[in-house]
Amino acid sequence: MIRNFNYFIPTRVVFGPGCLEQLATIAMPGKKAILVTFADLSMSRLGYVERIVGLLKKQNIDVVVFEKVLTNPLTGTVDEGVALMKQEGCDFIIALGGGSPIDTSKAMSVAAANGGRYWDYVPAGTGGRKPVEKSPLPVVAINTTAGTGSEVTPIAVITNPDTNEKVSLRIDELYPRMSFIDPELMLSLPKGLTAFQGLDAFLHAAEGYISRQSQFITDRFALEAVRLVYQNLGECVNNGKNLEARTSVALASTLAGMVIALAGCITEHSMEHPISAHFPRVPHGAGLALIFEQYFTKVVEKGTVNDRLIELAQAMGVKVEGTDEAARAMCFVRAGVEMLRACGIDRISHEAFGIENPDVDQLTEDTFGYSSGNFVRDPYELTRDDVREIFTKSLLEAK
Amino acid sequence: MIRNFNYFIPTRVVFGPGCLEQLATIAMPGKKAILVTFADLSMSRLGYVERIVGLLKKQNIDVVVFEKVLTNPLTGTVDEGVALMKQEGCDFIIALGGGSPIDTSKAMSVAAANGGRYWDYVPAGTGGRKPVEKSPLPVVAINTTAGTGSEVTPIAVITNPDTNEKVSLRIDELYPRMSFIDPELMLSLPKGLTAFQGLDAFLHAAEGYISRQSQFITDRFALEAVRLVYQNLGECVNNGKNLEARTSVALASTLAGMVIALAGCITEHSMEHPISAHFPRVPHGAGLALIFEQYFTKVVEKGTVNDRLIELAQAMGVKVEGTDEAARAMCFVRAGVEMLRACGIDRISHEAFGIENPDVDQLTEDTFGYSSGNFVRDPYELTRDDVREIFTKSLLEAK
Ligand SMILES: [Fe+2]
Ligand SMILES: [Fe+2]
Repeated sequence: MIRNFNYFIPTRVVFGPGCLEQLATIAMPGKKAILVTFADLSMSRLGYVERIVGLLKKQNIDVVVFEKVLTNPLTGTVDEGVALMKQEGCDFIIALGGGSPIDTSKAMSVAAANGGRYWDYVPAGTGGRKPVEKSPLPVVAINTTAGTGSEVTPIAVITNPDTNEKVSLRIDELYPRMSFIDPELMLSLPKGLTAFQGLDAFLHAAEGYISRQSQFITDRFALEAVRLVYQNLGECVNNGKNLEARTSVALASTLAGMVIALAGCITEHSMEHPISAHFPRVPHGAGLALIFEQYFTKVVEKGTVNDRLIELAQAMGVKVEGTDEAARAMCFVRAGVEMLRACGIDRISHEAFGIENPDVDQLTEDTFGYSSGNFVRDPYELTRDDVREIFTKSLLEAK
Repeated sequence: MIRNFNYFIPTRVVFGPGCLEQLATIAMPGKKAILVTFADLSMSRLGYVERIVGLLKKQNIDVVVFEKVLTNPLTGTVDEGVALMKQEGCDFIIALGGGSPIDTSKAMSVAAANGGRYWDYVPAGTGGRKPVEKSPLPVVAINTTAGTGSEVTPIAVITNPDTNEKVSLRIDELYPRMSFIDPELMLSLPKGLTAFQGLDAFLHAAEGYISRQSQFITDRFALEAVRLVYQNLGECVNNGKNLEARTSVALASTLAGMVIALAGCITEHSMEHPISAHFPRVPHGAGLALIFEQYFTKVVEKGTVNDRLIELAQAMGVKVEGTDEAARAMCFVRAGVEMLRACGIDRISHEAFGIENPDVDQLTEDTFGYSSGNFVRDPYELTRDDVREIFTKSLLEAK
């Protein structure tokens, strides 16, 4: 029986090599934009900023450039961007880059429309919990990475460095109005980032497929996304200029973003956040790579969704064999590990990423504490002992 | 290589048996609604009107009922509805039924927001071609049939009875804000309507899959839709109370609607419109049933998309065999004919539907005249001789 669902992805997705050129012709949701991108000036150096300004000029749209976003986007940067918008009279926001500029732009869209500081509207921790009464300003996302999926989700994750809180805001009005996914912009992504972000996309799809909130349409997207990543990520990592492989992974990332927008992640993501919070040099995807094998081995042991894991493996084109269901489900886990190996991220160096004396008890506490939001979506019961065991095997016994 | 695409389906889809109850809780896009439905009072008789009014009362939304829509929706009815909306101060529109009330509601949303008569905004024939400057009022669709897909398209088709014109208006703002697809409301649909509408959904998916504007995401939807219709429509026709089968076809219809919203139909639909225009008692789906076999046999003969026909057949679960590609593609055509037979619509009685002395030359003229909009999407060249041959074999030689 097909289960009931609500489907809502209002973002206009413009996809494909060269599609950025359509910035000159597709109607924009305003007359003057603030372009939000990385503080390291990488987008200027690659020529993307100049190119975008030029394309928008063709439809008489002015652009103010704001190159201040850090990898881990901060609430102060959001407020600074809003101040510049007001000063310059911008009426919409263009995010250029990956999840960080997109999330910063979403947060700016809330504060710019509703006044005050962004943290006033954050719904948890020390956030002000003010309701978002006025419709946020429109955001146009231009992706240069393939992984977070933020270009098609209604979620902004912003950090308050004073309190060390990293909090999500999720409201339907945060879906970007429009997103440009042009794989040509991804050809120069470095190997490591490519691998970690690709794994993130793979796991958004796989977790959303297992999630209790999975639904008919997102299931179709998830099966395509795991296939596209599994069959193309190694090539993207090892031959970054392969446009066809980049295109496949870019599409997978967007499909997987639609999956998490509707079906959500499970506790694998809950367990990763404390890792990258405790060890800030660990990228999100590296944290996921660290726990992937042990987490999913535990899922197979739980046994409640082995049919779903087998379906994922089959969609990936993996040969599924084994005498019982658990053995067949392990084919998914082994294929995932093999993909990590092909991408060179099966053994994350603790030294290289600054992982020192991981405190498994504290990581477990945090998973069940501020990071516990995904437990409702698990279709099995993951206990404290399970979580401690996964952290121990992943962080202490491995390597 | 994955082809470039633009994806945009902003409608919120609420799907599944019993989902209508969510009318009491999901935020509506206004405070007072006009409920637009059939003139035959069928929706009142089934108790749906009263139930919807009651559910909306729970969130303090008032409803004015407008039961005036004919099967072939008229521009005068649109204007009458707009007048009632203004008089009663309604700020959004609820469409209850199938494509006719939904299209009427979309047309009302344009005229109500922009003033004047609806025909002023119609972009062809005697239409006034006025631009739609103000955003149309929000439309909430409640489907009670499974076929047109209008609940997820930005298209309204309205007839002007004074000039005998049936013209489409397509603007992005016409996507319904929200659509409720509750298969429980479809359990009492009569056999004939079920079969014809189900075939319409099947062909929206199949034609969109062949269309030159087909794209990655709509292809996934199309393959699921043809499978769901092929495997369930016979059961819906012969055992209408089977909720599981109804649910499958309802989902197929919505997926197929998303397909035509983005990929569009091909010339099979261009050829049908003149049939039901000349013989007004022929439902759209019956017209499609009449030409299905000959149209697709011609497509196989053209040979340019036999790979796509084979993929459709495989998705449907049909055994595909044959010594060459054309023979394998014919498995799709034969499976379709077999589905028509299972639904009792393989032989459309000319008498029962008022088809008298079909003028094949005139039908061909009309196909290449006012109904020619889909030719750009055909991935083969259908000539006048081809069209005349399909009409002749379908309408004169068969029976
Ligand atoms: Fe993630
Ligand atoms: Fe149709």
